[in-house]
Amino acid sequence: MTDLQSYVQQLGQRARRASRLLATLDDNTKRAILNQIATSLRQNAPRLLEANAKDIAAAQAANLAPALIKRLELNDRKINAMAEGVEQIAAQTDPVGQVIEGYTRPNGLRIQKVRAPLGVVLFFYESRPNVTSDAAALCIKSGNAIILRGGKEAFHSNQAIVEIIQSALKDECGRMKDESKQQCASSSDSSFILHPSSLADAVQFIESTDRALVPQILKLDKYIDLVIPRGGESLIRAVVADSTIPVLKHFTGNCHIYIDRATAGIEQLVADICVNAKTSYPGGAVCNAVEHLLFHKDIAPKLLKPVCEALAAKQVEIRGDDATRELYPAAKPATPADWDTEYLAFTIGVKVVDSIDAAIDHINEHGSHHTDAILSTDTRAIQRFTTQVDSASVIVNASTRFADGGEYGLGAEIGISTDKLHARGPMGATDLTTYKWIVTGNGHLRP
Amino acid sequence: MTDLQSYVQQLGQRARRASRLLATLDDNTKRAILNQIATSLRQNAPRLLEANAKDIAAAQAANLAPALIKRLELNDRKINAMAEGVEQIAAQTDPVGQVIEGYTRPNGLRIQKVRAPLGVVLFFYESRPNVTSDAAALCIKSGNAIILRGGKEAFHSNQAIVEIIQSALKDECGRMKDESKQQCASSSDSSFILHPSSLADAVQFIESTDRALVPQILKLDKYIDLVIPRGGESLIRAVVADSTIPVLKHFTGNCHIYIDRATAGIEQLVADICVNAKTSYPGGAVCNAVEHLLFHKDIAPKLLKPVCEALAAKQVEIRGDDATRELYPAAKPATPADWDTEYLAFTIGVKVVDSIDAAIDHINEHGSHHTDAILSTDTRAIQRFTTQVDSASVIVNASTRFADGGEYGLGAEIGISTDKLHARGPMGATDLTTYKWIVTGNGHLRP
Repeated sequence: MTDLQSYVQQLGQRARRASRLLATLDDNTKRAILNQIATSLRQNAPRLLEANAKDIAAAQAANLAPALIKRLELNDRKINAMAEGVEQIAAQTDPVGQVIEGYTRPNGLRIQKVRAPLGVVLFFYESRPNVTSDAAALCIKSGNAIILRGGKEAFHSNQAIVEIIQSALKDECGRMKDESKQQCASSSDSSFILHPSSLADAVQFIESTDRALVPQILKLDKYIDLVIPRGGESLIRAVVADSTIPVLKHFTGNCHIYIDRATAGIEQLVADICVNAKTSYPGGAVCNAVEHLLFHKDIAPKLLKPVCEALAAKQVEIRGDDATRELYPAAKPATPADWDTEYLAFTIGVKVVDSIDAAIDHINEHGSHHTDAILSTDTRAIQRFTTQVDSASVIVNASTRFADGGEYGLGAEIGISTDKLHARGPMGATDLTTYKWIVTGNGHLRP
Repeated sequence: MTDLQSYVQQLGQRARRASRLLATLDDNTKRAILNQIATSLRQNAPRLLEANAKDIAAAQAANLAPALIKRLELNDRKINAMAEGVEQIAAQTDPVGQVIEGYTRPNGLRIQKVRAPLGVVLFFYESRPNVTSDAAALCIKSGNAIILRGGKEAFHSNQAIVEIIQSALKDECGRMKDESKQQCASSSDSSFILHPSSLADAVQFIESTDRALVPQILKLDKYIDLVIPRGGESLIRAVVADSTIPVLKHFTGNCHIYIDRATAGIEQLVADICVNAKTSYPGGAVCNAVEHLLFHKDIAPKLLKPVCEALAAKQVEIRGDDATRELYPAAKPATPADWDTEYLAFTIGVKVVDSIDAAIDHINEHGSHHTDAILSTDTRAIQRFTTQVDSASVIVNASTRFADGGEYGLGAEIGISTDKLHARGPMGATDLTTYKWIVTGNGHLRP
């Protein structure tokens, strides 16, 4: 076994051991740990800023884009926001142990479907230090160990954050050990003694920046239950190709707004929502920004031009099909490739469709099943659209930009799943759990 | 594109189209279709028996084992049971459209997490014709199209069952077309007209027995949302290796019973449950049969021998560790490989453990996370075992043989998932759904 293999094995083994212990913690203990982490983050702000300064200096030396450096940068306000995020997660209802269903069968067998932690999560993410504390907190709350691999640009910041988290976990270990000793003295069965020394391994940070490590850790299905790769499409595809561990994919969004024929009285809202959905995030570089507008042919003569003008006034480039260019000649011609493109920029595709069914078909065919919206006052059209559009989030008369864990009230999110299995759309603590069936009898034999 | 590729493509495209239509059906319609299928299965019993006779003759000519031929065989009683199974599924509550969560955010945005069909399911299964009607019925109920590939030994039986199902779907198409025409006459927007001609494609049967087809269909992630391979471990591993579609794995079970030190008063139950869990299914060849017994060292001197004797009296071969062989010398010595073995036969491994923690560690290390049981009167031990054993089903004071969709009250099951993501343990109609977030505003813009 090479050094790298043995390093990776140890990461996995330690995480698995810590996860077994985490699964036994009650919510009071998890809240205490999380609140301790929040306090510690605030108290250690100078240390965090110092580590962050190293990352910023390296990023500037490497001529990173100003927007990326901004994302990387920590300050007192951001550190406080990180701590607040952890406190919010602490205050959430514990998903673990929740009885999803429970009933007694005619033969008296009691059946319970109870939420349980997944076990160990491996998380790849972009260079935003606050994601480190969010992800660790969501995993602690849901009883999972986590192995973190953040973008290399944030290496020192992430390392410092993880050290603070591990130190809070170690403090809790000490407290649990004292309690164990007391239990030990009062119990005749030594098997009830906890061995909490491994709790700090619940949050581990991959120190090695060796890329050869990635395909190796993705083979540890014995120790790791789920991989969440957050980042560009190429990262996700590489992880899927190499992994024997289940992967929850977080692809980016080719989002649509369909403007229905029935929009009498909400004409101004239509323009406002389209502009908000395209331009409210800087540069439009966000997965829930709208990329394409579909106008019903009956409403296009009235609304297409003013909407395009409102977008153009915000420096959005319009690319239209023939019908669009007749109504708004300033539009550039769209090519077939446009309909499958997520621009992540101030560019938008505009198309006129014959019917709501044509809009639904277009979205299901060309969209990425992330977030799609209908603007309409017709309940029948809304019902049809929400039922048939096969997307994680279907938005009615609001901006696509609301598709977000925070906006949905989940607190922090560990990702926005574009998969259909297990979890869909914004993922919070509950989405990091599975369940087990607990079946209780009193000597039941199967006939 | 080869003929095979184009055949496979068409299967996928047709299934996808049918799934869009299925997603719009209300539960009354789905119940009517399912009840029609049940009636049709009974009415066409002679036709089914005729097709089945061909399979039986071929199986006899190929010298198939009598147990396999028995599994393959249809008769009036079995056909009636198939019809009853479909009727039971018809009568279940519709999972589609169920609001899992719903709330209004402080800004007035209404958020609903609503169950939706997965879309298209590809199902590989063993040669038991009743599985064909169960799986089709579960998919229709949950609004999914299904592509069926049953064991080749049941080819003619499965083909006849699917023809009966498709014919019931076609009848419903006719009724929907008539309704559509009426709607058409009364509606000004032709987009509200259903195009139900594709409904019969909701249940498709792979007619080709060409094995080259399998890796090709497993690449159709554009059309198929989930693969469920039911059968031997080698089939499942092959599917996982070739598939770009998510796979729900249905591995077999290395199940344990842990006999705790606290069993005063339930000694007879312990022996009865162990015997039932090992021997109640013919030949022990079933995934929820127990494969290994773990005795706490404090109780082994009292219970190990009588339990082993009761098993031996049923012709079960005992393989024990050293401590077991001291207490029950007739046991053969167990090798390390025994603890990882699912015998699927009248053989059982027996081991003495030092503590409940040692039992839990052994189960988590050597088990297959399928079904494991504790026999105990100590609530603290039960709590520890159910919390820490990382298995789909954790059974308390009852036989492992209860781990089954029917016994859990799910009606039929499409499989018993040994995965942790999406669905765990026995899977019914609800487990064939995902959800979508439906978000309703009245012009909400994101600040």
